[in-house]
Amino acid sequence: MGSKKSLYEDLGFAKIDHHRVKRKGFPEVIYCPGKTPEQISKIAERIANQKHDVLATRADKKAFLAVKKVLKYAKYYPEARIITVKRTRDSRLATRNIAIITAGTADLPVAEEAAVTAEFLGLKVDRIYDVGVAGIHRLVKNLDRIKKAKVLVVVAGMEGALPSVVGGLMDKPVIAVPTSVGYGSSFKGLAALLTMMNSCAPGVAVVNIDNGFGAAVMAFTILK
Amino acid sequence: MGSKKSLYEDLGFAKIDHHRVKRKGFPEVIYCPGKTPEQISKIAERIANQKHDVLATRADKKAFLAVKKVLKYAKYYPEARIITVKRTRDSRLATRNIAIITAGTADLPVAEEAAVTAEFLGLKVDRIYDVGVAGIHRLVKNLDRIKKAKVLVVVAGMEGALPSVVGGLMDKPVIAVPTSVGYGSSFKGLAALLTMMNSCAPGVAVVNIDNGFGAAVMAFTILK
Amino acid sequence: MGSKKSLYEDLGFAKIDHHRVKRKGFPEVIYCPGKTPEQISKIAERIANQKHDVLATRADKKAFLAVKKVLKYAKYYPEARIITVKRTRDSRLATRNIAIITAGTADLPVAEEAAVTAEFLGLKVDRIYDVGVAGIHRLVKNLDRIKKAKVLVVVAGMEGALPSVVGGLMDKPVIAVPTSVGYGSSFKGLAALLTMMNSCAPGVAVVNIDNGFGAAVMAFTILK
Amino acid sequence: MGSKKSLYEDLGFAKIDHHRVKRKGFPEVIYCPGKTPEQISKIAERIANQKHDVLATRADKKAFLAVKKVLKYAKYYPEARIITVKRTRDSRLATRNIAIITAGTADLPVAEEAAVTAEFLGLKVDRIYDVGVAGIHRLVKNLDRIKKAKVLVVVAGMEGALPSVVGGLMDKPVIAVPTSVGYGSSFKGLAALLTMMNSCAPGVAVVNIDNGFGAAVMAFTILK
Amino acid sequence: MGSKKSLYEDLGFAKIDHHRVKRKGFPEVIYCPGKTPEQISKIAERIANQKHDVLATRADKKAFLAVKKVLKYAKYYPEARIITVKRTRDSRLATRNIAIITAGTADLPVAEEAAVTAEFLGLKVDRIYDVGVAGIHRLVKNLDRIKKAKVLVVVAGMEGALPSVVGGLMDKPVIAVPTSVGYGSSFKGLAALLTMMNSCAPGVAVVNIDNGFGAAVMAFTILK
Amino acid sequence: MGSKKSLYEDLGFAKIDHHRVKRKGFPEVIYCPGKTPEQISKIAERIANQKHDVLATRADKKAFLAVKKVLKYAKYYPEARIITVKRTRDSRLATRNIAIITAGTADLPVAEEAAVTAEFLGLKVDRIYDVGVAGIHRLVKNLDRIKKAKVLVVVAGMEGALPSVVGGLMDKPVIAVPTSVGYGSSFKGLAALLTMMNSCAPGVAVVNIDNGFGAAVMAFTILK
Amino acid sequence: MGSKKSLYEDLGFAKIDHHRVKRKGFPEVIYCPGKTPEQISKIAERIANQKHDVLATRADKKAFLAVKKVLKYAKYYPEARIITVKRTRDSRLATRNIAIITAGTADLPVAEEAAVTAEFLGLKVDRIYDVGVAGIHRLVKNLDRIKKAKVLVVVAGMEGALPSVVGGLMDKPVIAVPTSVGYGSSFKGLAALLTMMNSCAPGVAVVNIDNGFGAAVMAFTILK
Amino acid sequence: MGSKKSLYEDLGFAKIDHHRVKRKGFPEVIYCPGKTPEQISKIAERIANQKHDVLATRADKKAFLAVKKVLKYAKYYPEARIITVKRTRDSRLATRNIAIITAGTADLPVAEEAAVTAEFLGLKVDRIYDVGVAGIHRLVKNLDRIKKAKVLVVVAGMEGALPSVVGGLMDKPVIAVPTSVGYGSSFKGLAALLTMMNSCAPGVAVVNIDNGFGAAVMAFTILK
Repeated sequence: MGSKKSLYEDLGFAKIDHHRVKRKGFPEVIYCPGKTPEQISKIAERIANQKHDVLATRADKKAFLAVKKVLKYAKYYPEARIITVKRTRDSRLATRNIAIITAGTADLPVAEEAAVTAEFLGLKVDRIYDVGVAGIHRLVKNLDRIKKAKVLVVVAGMEGALPSVVGGLMDKPVIAVPTSVGYGSSFKGLAALLTMMNSCAPGVAVVNIDNGFGAAVMAFTILK
Repeated sequence: MGSKKSLYEDLGFAKIDHHRVKRKGFPEVIYCPGKTPEQISKIAERIANQKHDVLATRADKKAFLAVKKVLKYAKYYPEARIITVKRTRDSRLATRNIAIITAGTADLPVAEEAAVTAEFLGLKVDRIYDVGVAGIHRLVKNLDRIKKAKVLVVVAGMEGALPSVVGGLMDKPVIAVPTSVGYGSSFKGLAALLTMMNSCAPGVAVVNIDNGFGAAVMAFTILK
Repeated sequence: MGSKKSLYEDLGFAKIDHHRVKRKGFPEVIYCPGKTPEQISKIAERIANQKHDVLATRADKKAFLAVKKVLKYAKYYPEARIITVKRTRDSRLATRNIAIITAGTADLPVAEEAAVTAEFLGLKVDRIYDVGVAGIHRLVKNLDRIKKAKVLVVVAGMEGALPSVVGGLMDKPVIAVPTSVGYGSSFKGLAALLTMMNSCAPGVAVVNIDNGFGAAVMAFTILK
Repeated sequence: MGSKKSLYEDLGFAKIDHHRVKRKGFPEVIYCPGKTPEQISKIAERIANQKHDVLATRADKKAFLAVKKVLKYAKYYPEARIITVKRTRDSRLATRNIAIITAGTADLPVAEEAAVTAEFLGLKVDRIYDVGVAGIHRLVKNLDRIKKAKVLVVVAGMEGALPSVVGGLMDKPVIAVPTSVGYGSSFKGLAALLTMMNSCAPGVAVVNIDNGFGAAVMAFTILK
Repeated sequence: MGSKKSLYEDLGFAKIDHHRVKRKGFPEVIYCPGKTPEQISKIAERIANQKHDVLATRADKKAFLAVKKVLKYAKYYPEARIITVKRTRDSRLATRNIAIITAGTADLPVAEEAAVTAEFLGLKVDRIYDVGVAGIHRLVKNLDRIKKAKVLVVVAGMEGALPSVVGGLMDKPVIAVPTSVGYGSSFKGLAALLTMMNSCAPGVAVVNIDNGFGAAVMAFTILK
Repeated sequence: MGSKKSLYEDLGFAKIDHHRVKRKGFPEVIYCPGKTPEQISKIAERIANQKHDVLATRADKKAFLAVKKVLKYAKYYPEARIITVKRTRDSRLATRNIAIITAGTADLPVAEEAAVTAEFLGLKVDRIYDVGVAGIHRLVKNLDRIKKAKVLVVVAGMEGALPSVVGGLMDKPVIAVPTSVGYGSSFKGLAALLTMMNSCAPGVAVVNIDNGFGAAVMAFTILK
Repeated sequence: MGSKKSLYEDLGFAKIDHHRVKRKGFPEVIYCPGKTPEQISKIAERIANQKHDVLATRADKKAFLAVKKVLKYAKYYPEARIITVKRTRDSRLATRNIAIITAGTADLPVAEEAAVTAEFLGLKVDRIYDVGVAGIHRLVKNLDRIKKAKVLVVVAGMEGALPSVVGGLMDKPVIAVPTSVGYGSSFKGLAALLTMMNSCAPGVAVVNIDNGFGAAVMAFTILK
Repeated sequence: MGSKKSLYEDLGFAKIDHHRVKRKGFPEVIYCPGKTPEQISKIAERIANQKHDVLATRADKKAFLAVKKVLKYAKYYPEARIITVKRTRDSRLATRNIAIITAGTADLPVAEEAAVTAEFLGLKVDRIYDVGVAGIHRLVKNLDRIKKAKVLVVVAGMEGALPSVVGGLMDKPVIAVPTSVGYGSSFKGLAALLTMMNSCAPGVAVVNIDNGFGAAVMAFTILK
């Protein structure tokens, strides 16, 4: 692996992986839970110092204010719980478009985490929300829009059936995102996760419960 | 499926399924968790604009106040956590009566969600509460009342044995509702759910934990 | 409960509930697992002696041969694993029809257990098999047939999404039956069971994994 | 604890606890699974050499034949899967009687394990089988017999509701034994175990799934 | 079951089982979670009106104050979270003594729930706390005290090994109570519950997680 | 959806989805478990009659012999448990190559299911087997080969860490396949599934346990 | 076991095991959850009275202030949630060094619990944080530091793969500590725990979720 | 990591890690499940060709015969299910002794897997079998033997309490091995695993269910 001297920067509590841009095509992302606002803003600053864009997920207001202090152009997306600091408008992927589809309105925070992340990575996003199987004509009505996308991110809680139905109708890769939305025996997303893992429609793969970020990165990796 | 132009109304964050009245016999119902009071009142308004009745479940006080602002006749049932806006007294189903039976007093919020929903849908409800198997003579004493109902909704937490006992004695369809009431290993209703799924008495089917709403709609669908 | 003298017959290893015909509208049913062929044939004989029809579920060939010895008109349905001994053609429910719908071909044994039980109870059954969501046009194509039924039994393994889709399109009671068909994380039907419990479409209630018998009795109880 | 020289006998693969008679009131019992017939017969011989009675549970035919070779008076109970070698008729507990109650016929092997163990320990057993809640009048009809027992062992699979119902009606200690009998989501007895753990009727305690032996020893310990 | 007219009192939200004193030997107990302070005080008043003693479990301060208003002699045990109203000093069971043994100090609330309930029921309680297997000499040192008890209630969280060890040393009935005390994979008492269910020492039966009340009633039922 | 007359062929026990070629880019695939050899060969014949290629997964020898009788060019891959009948050499995707990477030798059957399916679909497959993290230099040594692939299918049982490590090093989409290989607490693949769902490396999505087929179709859908 | 008179001190709610120093090489440790600040400070005082050092884990600020009042030299480590009172600088183990390695920054509280405990026990700790498999070059770069340690404590949440990778590269004992850090299906550390239990690299053993304390004591016990 | 050319040998289906001797202190071990006898014997031959000793675990008779054909000095331990081929008597660790302690006789196969592996690695093993907590004096009686060992491997199924008790009494590292021995709710070792993970005695770490091999390697790694 050669010399690793400049590959990461050591803050003691964190080792920032500046090499990730080269390896993965985008910079290290800050996962905020379990980190203090101070730790978050310090990591953000160091990433920005490398002329890299900054993305912080699961961020609350306090984390944003701490980052804002050191990085003026920081922007906060409250529904997606994301902080971004972006220098350059990425137009490379102008034609790389995805659709983000949700079963219900309660799935929006996860869908927005996926959408904001995807846009941060330079993808074009078509948001098609609240088209779950309880009223499947809403999905059918939007099939033409869906067909235009190259990758489909399908977000659903409760029984999580939507990715199977979409996967049965479309020949695009479906990235299924279970959400923790639902009554008692949804068990915080476990029911939806199992539904999606067992999808009888091929061409469906699954990311973690509520992991909108992971779905967006998977879409980006496919389209790159 | 013909033209779908007028079948739903798109608010961006939600696609209201106005067609549901025709398809299912009652309008789209608002499931509140994960929606803001503003989203809830906006959806309620649009449903009311279609001259449809409004039912919102798992609603807190804030949601009610937001709806009340735009729909004066909104009514709130705090124990059932339900908002209704109803124009017409539905007498069609005057003779369609159900019994809602609970094992204990702690099961009341779920039972009331079922009862208020059923009454909203035009059913007549007989509430028979706190007749669990720890004192089975209370159930035996009420058998004549129970026999008069056409569908039985049986609500129980803890060990969830009541639907089995009722199902063994009666020849009416039993809709079993597990509740999240109980000590440690009730695992928030999982124990009661499994008990009910495994009922040795035939003629019992189960809805989700704490899902009083679903039980009422199932009863309505059977009696329609 | 009055005198119980004649209400059951005591064989030591079993107490046959002859009273069930009155209470539930059909005689006690023999659940075969854990019983020897001798026990099964003895119970069957006693039920027949009361001029009641006999239904034995989860029966293997050996059990059938034992019953056949004592009851000449016994009939065996190998796919449904059911033995019946029926005296009278029940025409009371000629107009009481149900549809049994499966997602795949592997769900047939469970569907047939439901179908044979329903026919034993005097219902008319329309079998609509292999119309799962991986090719949803097969379902759409059969909607007219489905609409003619009064109760829908929907049988599915793997991700178990079919009852939700059917429940979203139809205003008939849907009895969902999860099956143990599927790859690894279907966990012998648990995934499908959770999917169905969490169905976002109202008017769906669930019976136990692979419990075709229970679904048929529930349908019978609704239509009675 | 004083000198332990004579308290156990070391066979290498086993250390036989001859002291148990003094400590617990009955000799060490041989749990057969995972032991070879040779190991079982060797341990049985050593226990018998101490003039103690021998009880071996979960024993198959092979184990019995091996024991029979060295201990002529060995007796095998195939339904209970138990081997006993007993010298003396124990009449001490002639008046110490228990009832063993099962929900169904399929619970018999577990009930018989309890019954044979209890009789081995000198208790008098009343077997009341197949009185589950699907036909609760069978239980009601036997209440007088049940009232005569001092301890109630209640054995049930499937939904496992019987101990709750018995516990609600009786003021005797109820030892609940879940069995692995049942359809899919009984999860080999887990459903029944959870039901019994969550019993709303006080005076109920639970032993392991299918553990008829443990229930009998608990009853013996209570009555001693 | 004879006439049931006077057997319970119907408050609508609750049916108080006044007959329980005759059936079970002690009055109906109020399980507080899910009930309002008003409901609790109303039920307590009606029980007291029947000249029965009152026991309310899992009660918080507010519930106590509500009861205190209507029943002056109400007493609150904060560690046990119990309210009692007792008229008569029960001396019937003066010689009926039990030991309540805990593995650690964190198990005290559950142990006290058991102890206060047992004393309410007229039992004599010896509290032997903090003698878990991490320092087993503390248990050994107390064996003589333990031997004097007729029933042993053993309370433990974490790995829950104590009932097995006690059950191996003693010939008294052991009622094992798992508690929700512990690190991560204790899963809120599930680990301790499974340990106790699988105890290799016979003479052990288990009640629900944190269910000190149930353990005390079981002990009372054994000693009656 | 227009006319569906010719979209599927109804065999009663199965409705063959001939339309799938158009919708998904490949014909309906036969999932063999739960189907008899006769059913399998009949379905295979009908698919072949449409001039479509045939793929049957989880097929045993008997199923193959039944298919072979009616379709002479049928070929069997015993390790992958796959039957294929292919007319035309598909060269369209000559340049569409994937790598299939396994952690151990025991993962081969699942890997081969993926490999044979992928080749059936016209992909070029590089098999890189037995490079798990217990000897990570084996992986490092093969990085250049891995870099040449466009999609990475990573198959692992036991602790399932390999997809995370590969995902951290590569910027290609990683499709993770948990296998049921492992000691006790692997719980038939659940441990590996959870590991992969929680991968800290982005760009990883997961298919079902042992589902090599699903992984191959996902890769095909991405590359199409 | 000889006389036990002086082996523990009985405070009623606790029996302090002063003998532990002799038996285990370090004094009884106070596990704070479920204990009041008063109980904690009282136990701490008694341990200190025996001239033993004091360690209290999972301690909050309030507990510290209570201890500080009676023991002036008490010290609080907020990130590790530990209170210590130490008299003597332990230099015995000066050469006994361990490395504590974390996958991410969010794992720090658990790692610090391990580190502070280890230092309390006289070990020398090298903290190597944030070297998880998403950027494995950070681990590779630190191999020389890791090689200098005699025991490796590896702390990881999410997918928990790091101990397997470290165990594959090193010949030192690896103590794996799963943490409750992660997205939905990490199930509060269960995913990481299962990963570590199933590690394909030998030389790895696991302690409880978030149990940094236990890992440190295990390391101490190995090096003693 | 330098050149890796000679570090492993590629057989296609396996990449043998000859470098492991240097890295871990012992050669690659063959885990047999999922490998054919031919694959096993081929791998064994290549390891032997490098003048390394051969260890194959979970091997059946067939695998042994295949290995025996190519390696004459192969030896089979049926109870441990292990094949070894050893050239040199390893005396390096003559003084490195461990104790392997089991709770019952049924735990022997796992204990023997540990013992034979440990002896293969050059450790001296003291086997102390069948000293579980149901008769704890058997353990107490053997404390002196146990004290002589430097590492304790404690093997237990059912409730798995033994490692906690041993860990409370001894200051040696305890490696706990849960086994899949037990009644119903032992859930194939899950109960014992959770018990051991939650051990209240410090100085205990856990390996996988039935993983005697892993325990032995951990002991070896500690003593090296």
